[in-house]
Amino acid sequence: MKSDIEIAQEATMKPIMEVASTLDLLEDEIELYGKYKAKITLSAFDRLKDKPEGKLILVTAINPTPAGEGKTTTTVGLGQAMAKLGKKSMIALREPSLGPCFGIKGGAAGGGYAQVVPMEDINLHFTGDFHAITTTHNLLAALLDNHIQQGNLLNIDPRQVVFRRVLDMNDRALRKIVVGLGGRTEGVPRESGFDITVASEIMAILCLSKDLMDLKERFGRIVVAYTYEGKPVTAHDLEAEGSMALLMKDAIKPNLVQTLENTPVFIHGGPFANIAHGCNSIVATKMALKLAEYVVTEAGFGADLGAEKFFDLKSRFAGLKPAATVIVATVRALKMNGGVAKEDLGAENLEALAKGIVNLEKHIENIGKFGVPAIVAINRFPSDTEAELEFIAQRCRELGAEFALSEVFTKGGEGGIELANKVLNIVDNKESNFKVLYELDQPIESKMEKIAKEIYGADGVNFTKEAQKDIKKYTEMGYGNMPVCMAKTQYSLSDDPALLGRPTGFMITVREVRLSAGAGFLVAITGAIMTMPGLPKRPAALKMDIDAEGKITGLF
Amino acid sequence: MKSDIEIAQEATMKPIMEVASTLDLLEDEIELYGKYKAKITLSAFDRLKDKPEGKLILVTAINPTPAGEGKTTTTVGLGQAMAKLGKKSMIALREPSLGPCFGIKGGAAGGGYAQVVPMEDINLHFTGDFHAITTTHNLLAALLDNHIQQGNLLNIDPRQVVFRRVLDMNDRALRKIVVGLGGRTEGVPRESGFDITVASEIMAILCLSKDLMDLKERFGRIVVAYTYEGKPVTAHDLEAEGSMALLMKDAIKPNLVQTLENTPVFIHGGPFANIAHGCNSIVATKMALKLAEYVVTEAGFGADLGAEKFFDLKSRFAGLKPAATVIVATVRALKMNGGVAKEDLGAENLEALAKGIVNLEKHIENIGKFGVPAIVAINRFPSDTEAELEFIAQRCRELGAEFALSEVFTKGGEGGIELANKVLNIVDNKESNFKVLYELDQPIESKMEKIAKEIYGADGVNFTKEAQKDIKKYTEMGYGNMPVCMAKTQYSLSDDPALLGRPTGFMITVREVRLSAGAGFLVAITGAIMTMPGLPKRPAALKMDIDAEGKITGLF
Repeated sequence: MKSDIEIAQEATMKPIMEVASTLDLLEDEIELYGKYKAKITLSAFDRLKDKPEGKLILVTAINPTPAGEGKTTTTVGLGQAMAKLGKKSMIALREPSLGPCFGIKGGAAGGGYAQVVPMEDINLHFTGDFHAITTTHNLLAALLDNHIQQGNLLNIDPRQVVFRRVLDMNDRALRKIVVGLGGRTEGVPRESGFDITVASEIMAILCLSKDLMDLKERFGRIVVAYTYEGKPVTAHDLEAEGSMALLMKDAIKPNLVQTLENTPVFIHGGPFANIAHGCNSIVATKMALKLAEYVVTEAGFGADLGAEKFFDLKSRFAGLKPAATVIVATVRALKMNGGVAKEDLGAENLEALAKGIVNLEKHIENIGKFGVPAIVAINRFPSDTEAELEFIAQRCRELGAEFALSEVFTKGGEGGIELANKVLNIVDNKESNFKVLYELDQPIESKMEKIAKEIYGADGVNFTKEAQKDIKKYTEMGYGNMPVCMAKTQYSLSDDPALLGRPTGFMITVREVRLSAGAGFLVAITGAIMTMPGLPKRPAALKMDIDAEGKITGLF
Repeated sequence: MKSDIEIAQEATMKPIMEVASTLDLLEDEIELYGKYKAKITLSAFDRLKDKPEGKLILVTAINPTPAGEGKTTTTVGLGQAMAKLGKKSMIALREPSLGPCFGIKGGAAGGGYAQVVPMEDINLHFTGDFHAITTTHNLLAALLDNHIQQGNLLNIDPRQVVFRRVLDMNDRALRKIVVGLGGRTEGVPRESGFDITVASEIMAILCLSKDLMDLKERFGRIVVAYTYEGKPVTAHDLEAEGSMALLMKDAIKPNLVQTLENTPVFIHGGPFANIAHGCNSIVATKMALKLAEYVVTEAGFGADLGAEKFFDLKSRFAGLKPAATVIVATVRALKMNGGVAKEDLGAENLEALAKGIVNLEKHIENIGKFGVPAIVAINRFPSDTEAELEFIAQRCRELGAEFALSEVFTKGGEGGIELANKVLNIVDNKESNFKVLYELDQPIESKMEKIAKEIYGADGVNFTKEAQKDIKKYTEMGYGNMPVCMAKTQYSLSDDPALLGRPTGFMITVREVRLSAGAGFLVAITGAIMTMPGLPKRPAALKMDIDAEGKITGLF
């Protein structure tokens, strides 16, 4: 079979204006970025405010393994399949980050015959949203350090600056740095560091804001530092939110692209559900719901991270009501969860499958806790045997979850018809009783404990001394009623990436809690999770190239 | 009179496709970025290769003062005026940098009725070129630090890493930093820092490359560090140039916009002629020469920096033959050069004018050394008196330079008719005997001394011990035949910003020489010039805002 980029480069794209014309959009609401990309102005909301909303389907997955599960691929394929069935469907995805693209991942816009195009553009600068976030974030950081340098009227304690800088790059050398060296004209020396752009609070705010004014007000609420007296200093105190909002005036508009089969797709905001909340933007999802009968969206990594945050953060904030959840798994990944080495995944192994399927089972149970119907989609590989597939189907039946095979990677939308029919049957006939996992008026610790116990299966949470101090401080500051965003490894239900399957008898360690007052949540940093990734020994960048005709290789 | 942004917001822009249709461009060569911006594919060069080139007019200025001279405004107005006279004219400008926009400058796309629009977009993210440069630069930096961390096969000496990182931000706290702190998994600690994006060698390469393959090869030649044995390590050694070129595939295409009077304008690459070579891209200038009879372009700050580099670097590399040079000055700025305080500039003061005009005289002389005819354009202010204007005109006559008043700020193209007629008269009737100032086969020191003595009027150059070591090293490495790019304050002909007028009896101090092997020149750092600016006490950002309707204030 051809590589993803070969398939993408052979795609017959329609001009994006033509794709947009199948939606209820006016020409003035469409801003072209080349022939095949567009931004949609938020003014469309006003015009469409009385239109009923479509149904929302969330695609999530088991915990990822090096064998891969194909969550984005399934999301894209499901949307394509619904369109094939004559339904007015849209897909709402997250934007890829450049950092991992040059690190390990290569591209990230689906795979095989279930991809979003133009794949190269989407994986590179796209419409500049991440660059706008990087710039906005670093403008605030520069204004902050400048304030300290130029007299420090606000009395900011340089040892208590909590706002770092960001780059959309995997760059471990920037994790811990000392800035402001060189003498009295060169700033005030202090410890700091860079996070990757997706971990920026600006990114979270973009994804959670309902419009530009909401965005600006949230920017103003960002807590960047504390004074020598311990009082919080906000972006508003620095008079920064106006210029910050200015920089984001276009980034807040959802980006319209298409699948290989010309299904309309919004790609807007937020990957990295391990260190961020990891959902695409509320404006994109809400606009898609206004424009289509069925909207298929995804949430990052496994359901323990992506789906939990999709429900407890995004859906809570936006008043969304997910109608169904698709949990994607592969036979290979389940066998890997059962202890099989990567090179042995080709052989049938029902014993390992039985051992590894507990991971899937836990995620099915978890989705049930949110009151949303679950459908398991097995992303089919040629090496899967009938016995293996039947084994999974049987388990799903026992757990009350629907089951469907998906062959969208090799067949596009055609390979997702079975899955689409099962999903449609559920969302059209079965009521979703969606509810959030926890109420906001509990203590911060209790909210974290509830997620750890009920979703991860932990015995409880250990809070380090620092985390306890953080929690006490935020509670006293009046932020105790915020929901929590867990930063945790994606590889395990626990906070130890080595614990596969369905670990039990473990504790989650919260080592630090960060306040995202603008986004409106508290971030719990667990285990050894880092907010600035590093590059591997042989970064994917080293294989990338472009020739004189502009043909790209090495993005896969 | 209305503010720049008010005038810009009231402009009647034509769809950029309509503007492009007045040029010899095919629809397929135009890539839209919204309705009013487009990139032009370089494939147009092939199609137009047999078409004769238009005439090139350079606009430069006296040394800038806080009173302002209006170089970009005059450039835009002159292009508008030529169009009014029925000539097929184009304008080729540099892209504004976000850093100074949020610092002191506000916007930078001309002024009054001689502006380029859409002004807000041009001053903010525009088509993302600077973000692409920032990302490309920082990818190389990340690959470099990662190489050292992951075994350091190339044997790079962390104390001899010369490639820094960049951000398009005025951020003094990043000038001198220590990276890689935190222990053995967090990188190798070393001293480093950030420059502003315009100072990046990637920016210089963008502006000097003739196509994407030239760009890629130049990327490969960038020297990023030295080994413990003192051998240079290049981006090619790090296998980085392919992914870097990939990131720049769109940035290399010139951006087409329009003036308030719908004259077509390319805005592409490179401001900051103080710390960089500071010219717009060669591809934009060359493409404009293929598309128009007359191309008006600018070079940054005073002629000592902008014009010298335009001639000795850009024109030398690209084989350009400038037909005429316009030197912009204001009565106010000349009086300020003569010692008048800003608050007293409104009053007639022939004595101060006589004292300050020496700055203009020196620049007229300098342009003559390049064999290019000079026209002085006085950017007229209401406070200018007839006696003052006649005084300048008289001096110009004595020096053999043409003289014209320009009122493009208040009147648009109509206010530039006199100037346009004088320029046309020269370029159509007078032969330019353009020649570069120095030959490449002289020693590095001699080239710097020639510029210092002949252009700046210095007695000579002091090379610090470090600069001497740098020069010796580059000569031994075989880079002795490169031209030099002087990094010097824009405020004075000397390297001391306080010396106004036409200083004499001074030495230029070269304190460091940096190698830009990919760009193809050596950068001489003089005086106290810095490659990362800082923000002022009250940054312009604090006044910027955007309202619910998207209306922007504070960009001026």
